[in-house]
Amino acid sequence: MFAPVYLDHNATTATDPVVVEAMLPYLSGLCGNASSRHEYGRAARRAIDEARSKVAAAVGAHASEVVFTSGGSEANNLLIKGAAACLKPGLLAVSAIEHPCVIRPAEQLRKRGWTLHKLAVDAAGRVDVASFQAVIAEQPRIVSVMLANNETGVVQDVASLATQAGAAGAWFHTDAVQAVGKIAVDFRQLNAAGVNALSLSAHKIGGPKGAAALVLDKRLDIEPLIAGGGHERGLRSGTENVAAIVGFGVACELAAARLADVAPRLLALRERLERGLFSLGATLFGQAAERLPNTLYFAFPDIDGETLVGHLDRAGYALASGSACSSANPEPSHVLRAMGVEAELARGALRVSLGAANSAAEMDGFLVTLRATVLRLQQLTAMAV
Amino acid sequence: MFAPVYLDHNATTATDPVVVEAMLPYLSGLCGNASSRHEYGRAARRAIDEARSKVAAAVGAHASEVVFTSGGSEANNLLIKGAAACLKPGLLAVSAIEHPCVIRPAEQLRKRGWTLHKLAVDAAGRVDVASFQAVIAEQPRIVSVMLANNETGVVQDVASLATQAGAAGAWFHTDAVQAVGKIAVDFRQLNAAGVNALSLSAHKIGGPKGAAALVLDKRLDIEPLIAGGGHERGLRSGTENVAAIVGFGVACELAAARLADVAPRLLALRERLERGLFSLGATLFGQAAERLPNTLYFAFPDIDGETLVGHLDRAGYALASGSACSSANPEPSHVLRAMGVEAELARGALRVSLGAANSAAEMDGFLVTLRATVLRLQQLTAMAV
Ligand SMILES: Cc1ncc(COP(=O)(O)O)c(C=O)c1O
Ligand SMILES: Cc1ncc(COP(=O)(O)O)c(C=O)c1O
Repeated sequence: MFAPVYLDHNATTATDPVVVEAMLPYLSGLCGNASSRHEYGRAARRAIDEARSKVAAAVGAHASEVVFTSGGSEANNLLIKGAAACLKPGLLAVSAIEHPCVIRPAEQLRKRGWTLHKLAVDAAGRVDVASFQAVIAEQPRIVSVMLANNETGVVQDVASLATQAGAAGAWFHTDAVQAVGKIAVDFRQLNAAGVNALSLSAHKIGGPKGAAALVLDKRLDIEPLIAGGGHERGLRSGTENVAAIVGFGVACELAAARLADVAPRLLALRERLERGLFSLGATLFGQAAERLPNTLYFAFPDIDGETLVGHLDRAGYALASGSACSSANPEPSHVLRAMGVEAELARGALRVSLGAANSAAEMDGFLVTLRATVLRLQQLTAMAV
Repeated sequence: MFAPVYLDHNATTATDPVVVEAMLPYLSGLCGNASSRHEYGRAARRAIDEARSKVAAAVGAHASEVVFTSGGSEANNLLIKGAAACLKPGLLAVSAIEHPCVIRPAEQLRKRGWTLHKLAVDAAGRVDVASFQAVIAEQPRIVSVMLANNETGVVQDVASLATQAGAAGAWFHTDAVQAVGKIAVDFRQLNAAGVNALSLSAHKIGGPKGAAALVLDKRLDIEPLIAGGGHERGLRSGTENVAAIVGFGVACELAAARLADVAPRLLALRERLERGLFSLGATLFGQAAERLPNTLYFAFPDIDGETLVGHLDRAGYALASGSACSSANPEPSHVLRAMGVEAELARGALRVSLGAANSAAEMDGFLVTLRATVLRLQQLTAMAV
């Protein structure tokens, strides 16, 4: 069978075989409802407790700070809407390059009397400090800035932003869905700097789809998005997805243990690709900023990203144009637009996001195919003109 | 290994081996993000589309009416809060015996200016028609009455209630989480009678934890609870849990195919148990009403339900006292209280909920153990007096 080379790890990752193995006993056969007061229920509860400790350990949090959710999108919505529901409406500030699952709930809050400010970023994709400080001076009640961007891979200086926001009395959240497993993430340290909540998601780090977490400073009150039986300290009701939570725990454990080995390997592959891309005349986005070791976002002038992705897919390389989650949207990336990239060039954007299984040979093969494809498309464009 | 007899299928069910088998290819190895525009993404999308058709077919709905969620609690919260967010605040009516994941979100809406009315039930656990009509006369905007109760198994005449609510201009939702797989559920027919939305959940019908659905009449506008990338027609964002959704589809297909065979078998087992319980002097709840074939809710005067469940667990029988989801709550069941059962007797409540794998021999063994346990506890009580 033909298996395309997978270069789209920021969209989702293969579930690690070790993770699948750990999940199977809870997936096949009878896995109790963790709320049930019999042996099947207690076994499920123990498995969840163990996973909670593993997730907490991987991000330097305490187990009691971990609220399990069904995904990163739910964790972000829970924080944004849940915190807002416990506060008097006021100013809410999120960076202009947040994932839609932060921006959309923030926009929904306008109906509830909140004012939304989207924080500007500079040309490299970093939150612009001067305009951040101007917004902070207006005393927002909630600020959300992602740790690393899913498209560009650009890493924000979240600790410094959180300290400034905290000094002005704001609650600070960071979406770490793309950061965990790729750079070190320490909630204790971030919390000391003023970060009150952090989101992460299992399927981005070799875990299964269906489990994620909001790590939450207990001083920050939130209202549940999903209310009911009172699970997760009343913050997220619903029968727990035991198998996925178990898998999430193991994936976190593996990600933390492998980080020191994986990150430099990914960086070396990315740099190898970057050299090739430069020689092909690509424009690289976010280059001037600190970036995730695995993420590369680029464009060729006059070549449509969607078209190029389609050609590369047929040639055996799976990658993304814009972010997977917003790919139903024909608009150019809101991240690139916020960075001041022309709509025309932004429409050409292609994202390579690497995983531990990728090899140098794959990078070289990809570059050969990319060069041929780009040349062909450029010739077509030239002929069409 | 010691495996207790499982008599708690309303809490959760074992995932059917056929379901697990269908899920495995999406769980192990690389399962794409269904939003990705490459072969891995398209394969995931196809799997979700196929599952959507299966879920729809099992409940007589159209595939385009199915909104996947992470669980029944999410589906119920999505409907209650999502519909309310698109309406002017007014009167909201839910039955007093709804699952907490309907009652709690309904209570949360009070903060948003809604008035909540809890519909009374009669001694058998059926919505009281006279008081229902009195509430309908006040023109509620949203009405939610469950198809079958998780504790008593009592089935409501939802079609008739929906018709009356619809005539008064209300949107009508029914929680069918416990009904699907146990009695015939046909959304087309219910929709014609005035039901606009229906919830179901995979793990209650031999499917995995982590997938569920809100079946939604397109005339009913709802705001997403989880906003973001615009998945599920914009009604539920977040990377889809492909494996769980695939498993949900297969579980629905199996449940529908097996219903005609399974339901009478469960009923025969239940009646066998009932005869034994009567001879032991148990009080049976909801007896005068139509009930799910698999559910039996009863109590022995002067014996605490929690205590009895603990003894039975150690003796090899896994069952529930009150509902699993509210078992963190020491209060007697709100369902029994609404039926007018004295707190004292309600505290004795025990639920047996059967599954297709249970046997007549298990019923007989359970009755022997129950008799011995009850006698011992009654002696202890008598001695303590
Ligand atoms: C930065 C970021 N936040 C949140 C999410 C949403 O996570 P999930 O897909 O688990 O809902 C994603 C991925 O889609 C992401 O890249
Ligand atoms: C009647 C009823 N509705 C909703 C739910 C919630 O479903 P889930 O556990 O999938 O969130 C349950 C089960 O817990 C239930 O019995």
